[in-house]
Amino acid sequence: MLKGFSTPLSPEGRSGLAARPPWHYAGTGLVIDYRADAAAVAAHLPPGLDPDTDDPGRATAHFFDWQACSDAGGELLDPCRSQYKEFFVLVSARFRGEKVVYCPYIIVDQDISLMRGLIQGLPKQLGSVWMTRHIDIEGAAAPAIPGGTFGATLALKDRRLAEAAVTLERPAEGAPGLTGGTKVVGLRHFPRLAAGRHDDPAVCELVQFGAANRRLSPVWSGPARFATFPSPTHELHSLAPVTVFDGYRYAMAMSVADLVTLAEVTLG
Amino acid sequence: MLKGFSTPLSPEGRSGLAARPPWHYAGTGLVIDYRADAAAVAAHLPPGLDPDTDDPGRATAHFFDWQACSDAGGELLDPCRSQYKEFFVLVSARFRGEKVVYCPYIIVDQDISLMRGLIQGLPKQLGSVWMTRHIDIEGAAAPAIPGGTFGATLALKDRRLAEAAVTLERPAEGAPGLTGGTKVVGLRHFPRLAAGRHDDPAVCELVQFGAANRRLSPVWSGPARFATFPSPTHELHSLAPVTVFDGYRYAMAMSVADLVTLAEVTLG
Amino acid sequence: MLKGFSTPLSPEGRSGLAARPPWHYAGTGLVIDYRADAAAVAAHLPPGLDPDTDDPGRATAHFFDWQACSDAGGELLDPCRSQYKEFFVLVSARFRGEKVVYCPYIIVDQDISLMRGLIQGLPKQLGSVWMTRHIDIEGAAAPAIPGGTFGATLALKDRRLAEAAVTLERPAEGAPGLTGGTKVVGLRHFPRLAAGRHDDPAVCELVQFGAANRRLSPVWSGPARFATFPSPTHELHSLAPVTVFDGYRYAMAMSVADLVTLAEVTLG
Amino acid sequence: MLKGFSTPLSPEGRSGLAARPPWHYAGTGLVIDYRADAAAVAAHLPPGLDPDTDDPGRATAHFFDWQACSDAGGELLDPCRSQYKEFFVLVSARFRGEKVVYCPYIIVDQDISLMRGLIQGLPKQLGSVWMTRHIDIEGAAAPAIPGGTFGATLALKDRRLAEAAVTLERPAEGAPGLTGGTKVVGLRHFPRLAAGRHDDPAVCELVQFGAANRRLSPVWSGPARFATFPSPTHELHSLAPVTVFDGYRYAMAMSVADLVTLAEVTLG
Repeated sequence: MLKGFSTPLSPEGRSGLAARPPWHYAGTGLVIDYRADAAAVAAHLPPGLDPDTDDPGRATAHFFDWQACSDAGGELLDPCRSQYKEFFVLVSARFRGEKVVYCPYIIVDQDISLMRGLIQGLPKQLGSVWMTRHIDIEGAAAPAIPGGTFGATLALKDRRLAEAAVTLERPAEGAPGLTGGTKVVGLRHFPRLAAGRHDDPAVCELVQFGAANRRLSPVWSGPARFATFPSPTHELHSLAPVTVFDGYRYAMAMSVADLVTLAEVTLG
Repeated sequence: MLKGFSTPLSPEGRSGLAARPPWHYAGTGLVIDYRADAAAVAAHLPPGLDPDTDDPGRATAHFFDWQACSDAGGELLDPCRSQYKEFFVLVSARFRGEKVVYCPYIIVDQDISLMRGLIQGLPKQLGSVWMTRHIDIEGAAAPAIPGGTFGATLALKDRRLAEAAVTLERPAEGAPGLTGGTKVVGLRHFPRLAAGRHDDPAVCELVQFGAANRRLSPVWSGPARFATFPSPTHELHSLAPVTVFDGYRYAMAMSVADLVTLAEVTLG
Repeated sequence: MLKGFSTPLSPEGRSGLAARPPWHYAGTGLVIDYRADAAAVAAHLPPGLDPDTDDPGRATAHFFDWQACSDAGGELLDPCRSQYKEFFVLVSARFRGEKVVYCPYIIVDQDISLMRGLIQGLPKQLGSVWMTRHIDIEGAAAPAIPGGTFGATLALKDRRLAEAAVTLERPAEGAPGLTGGTKVVGLRHFPRLAAGRHDDPAVCELVQFGAANRRLSPVWSGPARFATFPSPTHELHSLAPVTVFDGYRYAMAMSVADLVTLAEVTLG
Repeated sequence: MLKGFSTPLSPEGRSGLAARPPWHYAGTGLVIDYRADAAAVAAHLPPGLDPDTDDPGRATAHFFDWQACSDAGGELLDPCRSQYKEFFVLVSARFRGEKVVYCPYIIVDQDISLMRGLIQGLPKQLGSVWMTRHIDIEGAAAPAIPGGTFGATLALKDRRLAEAAVTLERPAEGAPGLTGGTKVVGLRHFPRLAAGRHDDPAVCELVQFGAANRRLSPVWSGPARFATFPSPTHELHSLAPVTVFDGYRYAMAMSVADLVTLAEVTLG
């Protein structure tokens, strides 16, 4: 009997990419609050989501340095399995009138995370993500909190796609994007390759990301810079900032073992 | 309207990992024909496939250096998108009495290929694959054909999983595994994360890999070595060779735009 | 006029790998105190160093997650230039009777650090180094201090070479190896390729590593595991632990702008 | 007694990055003949070399896919040690009136090659190099010779630095740059870190690259494109093409066991 949660399934269940949920996460995020072109944001929304006309084009860019594990354990002591860095964008939208955030792009540097993402409705692909680290010591190579400036970069297929920097000047009450109570919505999608059915995916549904036991550290914030760059192989730059608001840095923990389907959708 | 074949879908369809089929492939393979433990092979078969009792434990290990593109073009001149290396095992099995080969493991070094694989029922994960290259010049660093020995290695999560070497002594009529007329069968599988449905995948079906316009170069063959190594995070070593037969090297081209579902299956 | 400190030199001095000193470092280390085979340690000492017969075979294995920059700035906000992970061994030795530690092996995952190392008499090569991260939040994926277990791994050329784990149970006064007042000694070595002079390096000298403005965070310590694994391409395993003592974790900052030559040496 | 040619030296000599010469190479190159800004080329020349006023700004960009080994053997069957890809520029210059080519920049994707380069006076640093592959089969993913277009790309620190494409239309008599009889000159350079001597390198000499047993395959050539892109961390773009001439593709083998010092030089 084959065991495991995701492929490859195997006799003992040790080969699979994504372990059986729950998946536990702890990480540090650098988040930039910004406004993109409203039409570009609207063009990225799948059927079932409407533009957020109260706050058109509002978006957040998240850089995250994660450590993740399952109940099976072992990953934390073999960090090439538990650690990855991630960039994602959340854009404001409405689902049946309710304000939500939707994830059009998410880029990670590890395959286990990529597989978990596909299952969650997060359209993960591989790239290179880097973030300035906070080190608990004073020194020229250790930006301080408060006062220090923390940077982050994103590249995909050997091209720089985005750069950000935030100077952490003051505590903040919270942070926009992932951490509020706003629903995080994704498009769970799995294509068909059968001839004639390339436009008829086997799975195509709006889903609501479900995280339990969320914990947030104190949040630091301050003025931010954020820029995206054009690429022939990715459309992130169409979501370039028109206005950049503040940036935020915090640590976060959560567990994931559920996903709620909001609606089946038909594309095209 | 969102465009694209796989996630991330986007307004212009330029962001997606797997482009719209057909997918065109050309590559060079080093293949080792071997026999694994018959019980271990049987334990890797999904429901719907039976052990091949005529040739118990028969398997082939394939190392491949691929170049792939879509009709959209562009990938061939930006090789970080078109090139990848791959290791996979095919094991002998029976589907409704017919002899087939089944792919329990496949490891690649690129995300575009990983995504195409998941859609095709090939359980791709990321690793490090290397193969001795044939260079069309005489020299100490250029193994000759015939006479030269060509090696290949596989690593996953910082551990060496397999090593092979084949001395190409003579032409062969064909090669076992991928290139014959035998059906190549995979398990197309996409899990559910909804609470209570972790053992009830949204997609779980036996599929038959479909390739058109297959072309095979002349095949060279000779004595082979093949070894696998244990890992806490992968069960490939349970398919270690009991007997190693000959090895083979050839170039191959094909196009893929179809996939046939053989049967829905229920695991566990 | 060409500018820069290390190659490639260039008109504006922006292309070079290692920037002009001082080099500023801040990082987090996981250190395992252990005893290796005394004869193996002695066999790794260059001329001019003698075995430490008071403490034969004593060694420390260091895993470090560094952030480094120069006065030129810019690196901290472009972390693919400032961040790297590192593994090194220090073994006890005597130089003219004085107790010192000597670095036979050091493996990093970045070229800028590799170049700085060669200039410093640290025999850097590339590998894959991973360390469990401390995240300032409570959660299943965030080992706590005190109480948590922190792991680290090393791979080189697709083979796992070492694994360590330390459970941080209690504060410690300091940590063995890099942080004490003991001189850190390296072999600064640059070969000649001219025919007939392959055994007559252009530079071959014992050097004393010089760091200014060292700052050490509070140190946590506890019981440790450490294992090395054989490889055909590296001899680290000859320095495998015979006895493993405690492990330590701390943050450290320092600046480097000097190197003292202790003695010219002739090998072989 | 420590053994080995380059660091790390070790008791058995198995740990070192660069094995004892001779070093044997076989590889495939895509070469673009072009003219850069003459002043920019002149600004990249070290003392001892003069601009080539007969052919001002003439340069060649080389992309190479190499396989390299030593007499120790073993590397060819463990290709993560023998294979690497490389980009380098050669610019026309004069040494004591004689026409030579000089290498200001060379970027590779492997540490063993990086170390050999530093020893040879080639200022290697790490990057990402990709080249379209020729596969000996007909197919949409296999550019043919003649007629096919072969691309190549270069990235460094997550930024695309150069792109090239050559359509192979006709045989050529030879190829410019590396393969003619023109001397290839480099700057062998090893800095000092001792305080006060940062501008007084321990080794600083013009050297002539020496390769024996050179063999060249038939050469194909045709119209080429070549572009470079700006980066804050590299000055390659100052050598951007003003005029692009033809491109070339060939295989090459050689062995290296010698290096001739042309002159000691003083910078600045």
